[in-house]
Amino acid sequence: MAEVQLLSFWSSPYVMTVEVALALKGVQYEKVPQDLSDKSELLLKSNPVHKAVPVLLHNGNCVCESSIIVQYVDETWPAPKGSADLLPADAYGKAMARFWADYANKKVKDALTGILKSCKRSEEEKKAAEEHMLSVMGMLDSALGEMGGAGPFFGGASMGFVDVILIPLLPSLPAVEGLAGVQVPLVQRFPRLEAWFAACQAHHVASLLPSSASISEYVSRVHLPRLSP
Amino acid sequence: MAEVQLLSFWSSPYVMTVEVALALKGVQYEKVPQDLSDKSELLLKSNPVHKAVPVLLHNGNCVCESSIIVQYVDETWPAPKGSADLLPADAYGKAMARFWADYANKKVKDALTGILKSCKRSEEEKKAAEEHMLSVMGMLDSALGEMGGAGPFFGGASMGFVDVILIPLLPSLPAVEGLAGVQVPLVQRFPRLEAWFAACQAHHVASLLPSSASISEYVSRVHLPRLSP
Repeated sequence: MAEVQLLSFWSSPYVMTVEVALALKGVQYEKVPQDLSDKSELLLKSNPVHKAVPVLLHNGNCVCESSIIVQYVDETWPAPKGSADLLPADAYGKAMARFWADYANKKVKDALTGILKSCKRSEEEKKAAEEHMLSVMGMLDSALGEMGGAGPFFGGASMGFVDVILIPLLPSLPAVEGLAGVQVPLVQRFPRLEAWFAACQAHHVASLLPSSASISEYVSRVHLPRLSP
Repeated sequence: MAEVQLLSFWSSPYVMTVEVALALKGVQYEKVPQDLSDKSELLLKSNPVHKAVPVLLHNGNCVCESSIIVQYVDETWPAPKGSADLLPADAYGKAMARFWADYANKKVKDALTGILKSCKRSEEEKKAAEEHMLSVMGMLDSALGEMGGAGPFFGGASMGFVDVILIPLLPSLPAVEGLAGVQVPLVQRFPRLEAWFAACQAHHVASLLPSSASISEYVSRVHLPRLSP
């Protein structure tokens, strides 16, 4: 058995976050894909509270919840030579990173789901969902300016906590835009976020993410039919 | 101006959490009470995203969100002589504390609100709200056994992160029980949690909490009329 195992599911944004964090810290691990429609004994035993992926297994410890796993990874393994830890060293930098990671976790998924749901609704509700998405993106764009300094990442010159929380947007945002027939005007409205997307796409960890086309197919087959109109 | 200020509101459980954390770390601070029906420039400027208390002001930094403030406090000030930090030193201990703090934040308030709401509903819904509360309390009771060792706190012999997140239960649980006419059978069902309540009541930080009677009066006057039946 590998020293580090990750209970995973290919389309989970929370799993993507943890995979990217592990890659940035140079941690070798074995991916253990889970069938979420028929949960394994291993998953139920290692995350009895939420019964969800990702779960990191390390030294007999089970660590659950992506944000908590990322911090565990950051506190357990040193950064590879020439790279930085995911969280800043100072308490205020840590607080800022935690604040925006929490904001991203709470707001971005809701905003994306809102856009998907609004497909089936009135023009007014579509407009409201788009406006909400724009306000969330605007907040993130400001945070990127405040935290990232000269950028291009929230972590500055290298990816940090907020970057790994947000990186599932790379496949998810184009997928949702395509399915809903809307487009978030990144270039015109949020040039810093636009540059962030470009820098993430160019980073070697982008190869760990599923394609936008596969997410689009999965969401339209599995999630869209379940969304209440 | 004091070196540390806390934008506060007397009945906020999140403010109670931060006040207890500051007291445990021996940090002197000035409380700056806020009028939440007419938010001050200072509050809007220091927490533009959520516009909510608590906010900790320290060295020109604004730190928001109670869980994040508690970690900032723990990472900024050393524990007073003879006492321990709020989070354990090891990465897995930290992950466990963060997991249960997050669980408490997400589930306990919802369970209490569920009980309050169920007052106005059918016997079946009342029963369901009570069962949900019991399942949350059961999870916390197990976590206390797992994390707290010989106890009496989640932090072991002294209060830690999960304890300060949960301590607003001291006034809130009896208030909600009284208003809803139910009683969580702590003594029979959750002896570890019962001992936790007793140890918290006996701790000097309990004097920082408002009385159960004042919370009860406030909830019945301000929150109950707003709850949809």
